[in-house]
Amino acid sequence: MTAFGWSLAGTDGRGRAGTFHTSHGDVCTPVFAPVGTQGTVKALTPDQLESLGAGLILANTYHLYLRPGHQVIARLGGLHGFMGWNGPILTDSGGYQVFSLADRRDVDGDGVTFRSHLDGTEHRLTPEKAIAIQEDLGADIIMALDECPVPNDRDAVEGAVIRTHNWAERCLEAHTRTDQALFGIVQGGIFPDLRTDSAEFIAGLDFPGNAIGGLSVGESKPETLAVLELLDQTLPEDRPRYLMGVGSPEDLVEGVVRGVDIFDCVLPTRMARNHAALTRQGRLNLRRAEYIEDTRPIDPACDCYTCRKFTRAYLRHLSVSGEMLAATLLSIHNLHALVHLMDDLRQAILELRLNAFAEEFRDGYQKHRDPEA
Amino acid sequence: MTAFGWSLAGTDGRGRAGTFHTSHGDVCTPVFAPVGTQGTVKALTPDQLESLGAGLILANTYHLYLRPGHQVIARLGGLHGFMGWNGPILTDSGGYQVFSLADRRDVDGDGVTFRSHLDGTEHRLTPEKAIAIQEDLGADIIMALDECPVPNDRDAVEGAVIRTHNWAERCLEAHTRTDQALFGIVQGGIFPDLRTDSAEFIAGLDFPGNAIGGLSVGESKPETLAVLELLDQTLPEDRPRYLMGVGSPEDLVEGVVRGVDIFDCVLPTRMARNHAALTRQGRLNLRRAEYIEDTRPIDPACDCYTCRKFTRAYLRHLSVSGEMLAATLLSIHNLHALVHLMDDLRQAILELRLNAFAEEFRDGYQKHRDPEA
Repeated sequence: MTAFGWSLAGTDGRGRAGTFHTSHGDVCTPVFAPVGTQGTVKALTPDQLESLGAGLILANTYHLYLRPGHQVIARLGGLHGFMGWNGPILTDSGGYQVFSLADRRDVDGDGVTFRSHLDGTEHRLTPEKAIAIQEDLGADIIMALDECPVPNDRDAVEGAVIRTHNWAERCLEAHTRTDQALFGIVQGGIFPDLRTDSAEFIAGLDFPGNAIGGLSVGESKPETLAVLELLDQTLPEDRPRYLMGVGSPEDLVEGVVRGVDIFDCVLPTRMARNHAALTRQGRLNLRRAEYIEDTRPIDPACDCYTCRKFTRAYLRHLSVSGEMLAATLLSIHNLHALVHLMDDLRQAILELRLNAFAEEFRDGYQKHRDPEA
Repeated sequence: MTAFGWSLAGTDGRGRAGTFHTSHGDVCTPVFAPVGTQGTVKALTPDQLESLGAGLILANTYHLYLRPGHQVIARLGGLHGFMGWNGPILTDSGGYQVFSLADRRDVDGDGVTFRSHLDGTEHRLTPEKAIAIQEDLGADIIMALDECPVPNDRDAVEGAVIRTHNWAERCLEAHTRTDQALFGIVQGGIFPDLRTDSAEFIAGLDFPGNAIGGLSVGESKPETLAVLELLDQTLPEDRPRYLMGVGSPEDLVEGVVRGVDIFDCVLPTRMARNHAALTRQGRLNLRRAEYIEDTRPIDPACDCYTCRKFTRAYLRHLSVSGEMLAATLLSIHNLHALVHLMDDLRQAILELRLNAFAEEFRDGYQKHRDPEA
């Protein structure tokens, strides 16, 4: 028996409002998970994360396996204690980062051999190893090992789907911890038949949650949305769905409208380190000279710590001066914006006005893209 | 009338416990002021600064004059609002940084011409300009323009003392804001006669507080302490004394024992960015391999946020992984350590056990320097 559960609180069209339950607390869905790559959401303390409203956070198995090592983290009591985050954590399988290593990895039917980006040492990741590492890390939600290919190369995608399915079965077999939920991952690139086959296969394995992999990796936006609409018809409705690595505000809205419950992405924190702030009216580049004496907050409608306390003028000063505090304050704002966008989407679902909310949201973005409109 | 005042709560030997009053609140002395060079104490939010117990903070006139500019900050409502710090602020005159520019500055009797380290543009700082800039910045305590020479070059020191005295008079003349306290600065290098002359001259100008400049800039530790002991006999006892740019734990203790009330230094935050933590038992380099599975906090006796929440193992991981959070968490700890060392010193003065406290403190440091002892 797993401690994990997910219950539906309401639906509107394809949109779903729910709650998932873990041994580290409950999280309302839809939810956006900030990414803590190396066991820290960059530039933020756990207290700041909690204050901005983060529920679930993600950590990367590849990075933590290499440094400080999963066994070290296990001996230190697991990832929650290690990083001082007592809420739910999700770890990926490590596969995505390994496959991103390009010329440093070699995949075969049994797994993948790769060389560390840190010191060139050789390592091997198999489904069993991916599970063992994630059991040591001790996250509440862990992921099956999958292969994420170039999405429009049919031969590559077909091979990846076969391996992904085989590895999903082996991960299920290898998984022993009953306090962790193991999610399966659907692959299939942009090909409707492969996506449907993959979704049916993965759904048949009865994972407590299902993830959609291999999107936002080079395909067009209409192709992404078509895959989501297709999978919404195949994936079981009583399990949460996790769209991996997707997190721009517009993608979150389009994903929720198409039945997705969980998202993660480095975008808001990476943008913050690059001096960009997310707002409903588009993105602000805080280094621009026009903000030098701008006494407004980033977003007058936002009630995050950054918007309550600081002007654009100060944030611009921090950004052009290379001060670390710029990354901290912009990360707080950007994550707060996405976390509360999800709250707003949930509320819209519960109040049966999701489509109206999405339309209004798209209009705002459209206006920003075309300032003459 | 200035809003600034300082009242003595008790003395023990030469040590003084007091309170200074500003229009942004009271601060107990002795006090250590964290340095917010560019209008931010690096890697910390104002909330984190307040939580760790900071009272007074310092900002650098040179940096803020160049970027974003004092007039910009004035139009934005002054430094307090700009950086979101509602407690007392002290600004230096800009002189120290300008004199540090070496081949980029040219001093004369009237002031100093220098080229910006940012873009090479030429600027001129005079006593009147230093005051005008600081009035625009709006700190609670501001400093007279002085010249800080190499401390053991008698000719250079004599010239600097003459200019410093003349500039002190001009600063007093130029200063108009009644809600700011203007402090004078004593120079004189390591030369007892020049130091005494300078202290008498500056004391005669009746500043509400007096600073000791030109120390910790290359002279030996016994030379520093000898100057402090000498000045303690000359500077008025009813005004606070500020030892500029000094802030190692051992220097704070030795300064308080010799009648100093205010200190500032980048040391604790710079050390934090270099992975070093201050403890009563000496300094820890958190990158060392010995901490990889060390589940202790930096200092088991410390109750700062970092020590309450995180292990040395995690801090080591953040440090070796190049994560910004390492700088934040170590800055919190190091500043907390110094702020609370000052609290302990104050308590020891009020309880008439300052010498015993200082002896115990020196013993701890001595043991660390010689681990075989």
